[in-house]
Amino acid sequence: MGALNDEHFNVELDNGLNLNLVEEQEQVVISNISNAVNTLLAGLGEDSNREGLIKTPLRVAKALREGTRGYRQKVKDIVQGALFPEAGLDGDSGHAGGAGGLVVVRDLDLFSYCESCLLPFRVKCHVGYVPSGQRVVGLSKLSRVADVFARRLQDPQRLADEVCSSLYNGIRPAGVGVVLQCWHIEFPQVDCTCHEQINHPTVMDMQGWLKVSVCAGAGVFEKETGDVWGDFLALLKFRGVKLDKLRNGSSSSQRWCPSRSLDLLAINGHTNNWNPLSYKTSITAEPAPASMITAVATILLSLGENPSRKELVGTPRRFVQWLMNFKSSNLEMNLNGFGAEATCQIKSRKQMNKDGVRLRSDRVEFRSELNLPFWSQCEHHLLPFHGVVHIGYFRTEGIEPIGRAILQSIVHFHGWKLQVQERLTRQIVETVSSVFGGDVMAVVEANHICMISRGIEKVGSSTATIATLGRFSTDPSAKELFLQTVSDSTACGG
Amino acid sequence: MGALNDEHFNVELDNGLNLNLVEEQEQVVISNISNAVNTLLAGLGEDSNREGLIKTPLRVAKALREGTRGYRQKVKDIVQGALFPEAGLDGDSGHAGGAGGLVVVRDLDLFSYCESCLLPFRVKCHVGYVPSGQRVVGLSKLSRVADVFARRLQDPQRLADEVCSSLYNGIRPAGVGVVLQCWHIEFPQVDCTCHEQINHPTVMDMQGWLKVSVCAGAGVFEKETGDVWGDFLALLKFRGVKLDKLRNGSSSSQRWCPSRSLDLLAINGHTNNWNPLSYKTSITAEPAPASMITAVATILLSLGENPSRKELVGTPRRFVQWLMNFKSSNLEMNLNGFGAEATCQIKSRKQMNKDGVRLRSDRVEFRSELNLPFWSQCEHHLLPFHGVVHIGYFRTEGIEPIGRAILQSIVHFHGWKLQVQERLTRQIVETVSSVFGGDVMAVVEANHICMISRGIEKVGSSTATIATLGRFSTDPSAKELFLQTVSDSTACGG
Repeated sequence: MGALNDEHFNVELDNGLNLNLVEEQEQVVISNISNAVNTLLAGLGEDSNREGLIKTPLRVAKALREGTRGYRQKVKDIVQGALFPEAGLDGDSGHAGGAGGLVVVRDLDLFSYCESCLLPFRVKCHVGYVPSGQRVVGLSKLSRVADVFARRLQDPQRLADEVCSSLYNGIRPAGVGVVLQCWHIEFPQVDCTCHEQINHPTVMDMQGWLKVSVCAGAGVFEKETGDVWGDFLALLKFRGVKLDKLRNGSSSSQRWCPSRSLDLLAINGHTNNWNPLSYKTSITAEPAPASMITAVATILLSLGENPSRKELVGTPRRFVQWLMNFKSSNLEMNLNGFGAEATCQIKSRKQMNKDGVRLRSDRVEFRSELNLPFWSQCEHHLLPFHGVVHIGYFRTEGIEPIGRAILQSIVHFHGWKLQVQERLTRQIVETVSSVFGGDVMAVVEANHICMISRGIEKVGSSTATIATLGRFSTDPSAKELFLQTVSDSTACGG
Repeated sequence: MGALNDEHFNVELDNGLNLNLVEEQEQVVISNISNAVNTLLAGLGEDSNREGLIKTPLRVAKALREGTRGYRQKVKDIVQGALFPEAGLDGDSGHAGGAGGLVVVRDLDLFSYCESCLLPFRVKCHVGYVPSGQRVVGLSKLSRVADVFARRLQDPQRLADEVCSSLYNGIRPAGVGVVLQCWHIEFPQVDCTCHEQINHPTVMDMQGWLKVSVCAGAGVFEKETGDVWGDFLALLKFRGVKLDKLRNGSSSSQRWCPSRSLDLLAINGHTNNWNPLSYKTSITAEPAPASMITAVATILLSLGENPSRKELVGTPRRFVQWLMNFKSSNLEMNLNGFGAEATCQIKSRKQMNKDGVRLRSDRVEFRSELNLPFWSQCEHHLLPFHGVVHIGYFRTEGIEPIGRAILQSIVHFHGWKLQVQERLTRQIVETVSSVFGGDVMAVVEANHICMISRGIEKVGSSTATIATLGRFSTDPSAKELFLQTVSDSTACGG
């Protein structure tokens, strides 16, 4: 137990009378960010007075301040008082606790913000250090120091470098090594055929995420081929951490953010907007409004960043472009667009029904389409949630099953807007039911970025929602059949 | 992003001028707990002025206050303002988002304190609820509400019941179901033969922990065999959560704490103290001093608990008994005790060396003993850390290898005291080397309870330390050979 609130504690004592002043300044910052978020909502054509959104600007402002509190923290304050004298053997006979006494803390779950697009990314941080000067640091401080730098706008390599050098300077050990595994939410690709590529994505095993591993070393860890790196990586391997591509100091991690590859497309004359439905239909790429871009630059400034810093120059535009995908009207237009195939099917179904082709209504067959990927944006936190949708329905014999592409389009249609998962689930079954009739059930499984960032930080958590219509509501065995189908698919896909 | 600090924020605004007064009262509480911790350290025969311990009382006090902040939190404050209107279908056609619209949040990592022995235990919390009244609750609030009750002294079943009923009353949904998987640190059994039972314990897969799963339901979840429970459990199964033994309302979870079974032993006339070395030698069971028991009762009172509450009556005594295992002098005495076999080996080795049996010094063989379990108590936080030790050494041909039981005793000897992992690792190689001579290497892999509780809450994290002596320090291939051996063992044992 313990050192938990040391810093907080000290700050409170030190500040004394200044507390109210600091609080006042913080209110101004929160208010500035809230106003900027209001501008963003307006730019998306949203009514910021509707109930789901009314507190969103304040929520986003507070969470951003908390999520980037690293700008206001000092490593010195954290490490101070957590260095403990510890005898070591530095004699001829060996180095237990001395130069050979590697200490490794593995699997520290953190999150950070991508400086290229402003979306949070997940970090699994592994720190190794070799004590010297006969002192060790409290283990939890390795986590706290890493957190200081994670809670800023970052690039994986810089994050690794900063954690490494600050620990090296703060603890003054024989050496420090840092390995980060980072996951960035993946965007649907232009000409995306995600629904074919991803056969059995399971939310937990990080499909739908781009991964990059980086490392940094100082002191005895400086040489990447050194002996001590071998020990460090061996200890990581014990915990199942396998590092295929380890990058050190390479500039390539700069381009890990998927928004960067879209920059290139823009340069090459392609669309400069993400196109969620592009494999079915084209949407008008809406330009990012200047007012929104300015609003995001204001937010960067309020967080204590310099929007002119070279890595941040394109960030407001990229973030706004990401947001513009969730402009409701964009998608409304496109519902018509995706209809080419659907309309055909609807017509033929309606015709069949009219013609009484439904000869024997009990001759129905259970059908399902599983693992349809989706992306959406949480309207409470303006953060993505994404995952897969499973849809089950009953097909009357003689009628064509609903095409997977159509179901995928319906999923995208309801996903690409400011949403909540419960509503998304309901809207999907309602749409499928209203177009194709009858008995529909959907399970939506999602990772919410708002659950891994924001102080909640429930990294492993995931959310599932169920909606049922018709027979799936009244007949438990129908529901069970569908859930079993999903379960079987998950088992074989894992 | 968002609602993160809503409560904190509001409290700050509401309190206004009372802030200093509250701060003053808090200082008194912290000071009371610190004094009690000082009494505990004195009872353990420790010098609370030695550098490793000097800040321990304050650390423990602050962490305990933070870890039990649930006593000072109100569910109403958390849920208020996080209920969002959401249309549902409650018509004849089905219940999307209505009574059939199950919402499940899985794998929320929490920790709580065992009311039987005061040690923290890990919780994986799964919450399902069926919205009604056309409103849903922000997903993160399910986590926050669960956390309020986790951060108190708890028993798994009561925790499940309290989370369930408070969500049911706070959200007023059609029903709430709660499933908890709880892990309690395991104590070595009297007449323990752990080193034989546990073949390949890996730190991460929760060996060395006792597990219990409990559930609670309200509204449509009240009947345990109901339809909606089937859906909930199916969604948990998607994420690999398999529940073999689910308890509901049974009193059996009361007895999950291993300290409880020792109560029974005491009643039956057996030792009432845990005996870490009992399979080798007997130790004098030291009675728990009354001053220490009173100190723990004072802590309970300071946290806002009633030490006379029936479930807490025996807790101070049990906690002190656990602590007494880490009384340094206890163990010093017993080093002689465990020597029966060791002394014999040492004699024969020394004799061999004297007689020049070491015919050809280059004829040595690499030997290792892996996965020796250990328990220890972090001296910075007064919280357990435990895991496994791997020891490698070179055996001169013709000399008997070191018995596993002896290495296990050395590990226990250095484990059962107030420790830090770095020192433990060094002391193990030093002892093995001084008794048996030469080239020794140890890897200690541990879970630190202080890393999963205390606001750090890095649940998946684990710590590994290496110490090397002799050839393992100078010959990289020797070290590599050992690490590869451990790696192979981990792979086959998983």
